[in-house]
Amino acid sequence: MWGKKSFLVVTGASRGIGREIAIKFSSKLGAGSKVVLIARSTSGLHATRNLILAVTNKTANPVGVTVASVDLSNSAGIEFNDIMEEGCDLDSPETFDSAIMVHNAGTLGTVHKKRDLRRNKFHKGPEVKKTLVNITSLAALKPFPGWSMYCSARAAREALFRNLAAEERDVMVLNYSPGPVETEMMTQVLEQSLPEIKSAMKETTILTVDQTVSRLISILDKGIFSKSGARVDYFDDIV
Amino acid sequence: MWGKKSFLVVTGASRGIGREIAIKFSSKLGAGSKVVLIARSTSGLHATRNLILAVTNKTANPVGVTVASVDLSNSAGIEFNDIMEEGCDLDSPETFDSAIMVHNAGTLGTVHKKRDLRRNKFHKGPEVKKTLVNITSLAALKPFPGWSMYCSARAAREALFRNLAAEERDVMVLNYSPGPVETEMMTQVLEQSLPEIKSAMKETTILTVDQTVSRLISILDKGIFSKSGARVDYFDDIV
Repeated sequence: MWGKKSFLVVTGASRGIGREIAIKFSSKLGAGSKVVLIARSTSGLHATRNLILAVTNKTANPVGVTVASVDLSNSAGIEFNDIMEEGCDLDSPETFDSAIMVHNAGTLGTVHKKRDLRRNKFHKGPEVKKTLVNITSLAALKPFPGWSMYCSARAAREALFRNLAAEERDVMVLNYSPGPVETEMMTQVLEQSLPEIKSAMKETTILTVDQTVSRLISILDKGIFSKSGARVDYFDDIV
Repeated sequence: MWGKKSFLVVTGASRGIGREIAIKFSSKLGAGSKVVLIARSTSGLHATRNLILAVTNKTANPVGVTVASVDLSNSAGIEFNDIMEEGCDLDSPETFDSAIMVHNAGTLGTVHKKRDLRRNKFHKGPEVKKTLVNITSLAALKPFPGWSMYCSARAAREALFRNLAAEERDVMVLNYSPGPVETEMMTQVLEQSLPEIKSAMKETTILTVDQTVSRLISILDKGIFSKSGARVDYFDDIV
């Protein structure tokens, strides 16, 4: 899936796993690729953009990077479409060979509304390879005391992507569970969770964003998720 | 769990699986039990109430039945509390030996807000045996083209009950997946679903409400869901 002229969208790209995905994925795209970074923090988005440019400008394949500061929990669909239209000429989807969308945004506290590729014009054109990654969580499967809303939202979101895979056969969908990762969300977890969660987390090996995003890339590379809509966890045994 | 003086609440009790649960469960309660039936349809609720009285008045253990016509998708929590207070004297929870709540209400089309036992005064009193049944669906695990919202809502609701089980150790929670059942919802499924779902459903053995509720009761009887929060499907191999 790499090396193609691609249109890449990453939500929650201002920090943490989303930033690492944006940088690592961008460095593997082909010439003429465009990247759209979405998050709330403008400063965080610009920092991610600069990191992408620093990496890709050294290569033969510099990418164009657009940033959009938006709170997806409050944004209307129209706003999302505007961002997409700014990021690429949606009337000419044939100018890209691959579309990659990474739904990474999420908070411990709320459920974020999401839009997906099939709702905009970009969806047209079956010749475009489409990859959709949902950053999910163990919380979608396993209860964590105190996290009812987070667990429910994660379960719902994962189900939505399973369904999308069943409905849109030309989109390859991966639900990737990144493991416990050293991010600001983890800081929040350690500060705000119930005592039993805090102590469990303290005994867990916390991954770096580099570790988990490298794993994500190797999963995508190896096509391990042979079935669209599948769930793969960082800790799953993969050959 | 049966034969005790119980406080039983069933949502979606005006028809289908909910009605069958209300009748079958009521007939197994001890003397002095109270039953609260909740649904939108007043006529349906009264019919269920009459069916319960017809069954239990023949036994040594007639039950008191209160009905409440309410649309749970639009009701405020306060309304739900009012219903509970009408159904039993919440200031004297010790007058019941068992509390059983069956969250059955749901539609193909929307997500229903729910309240649960732990939010009201009835929760007090650890000596009361508390059983909470969530009627879930295969759709919580498996994608069905066209049912994105239903699948997501079911997954979220199941996750919520898993979490509840992890948080409230004195409540026994069962997520019961009733299989494909001959109800009005099934009629809607067969009328409104995408062609591939319709034809798959037509090849499936559709269960009666009696079959699936009898199975639910035998699961509860045998305590097969040894772990609170577990999911049991009608078709699971159970000894």
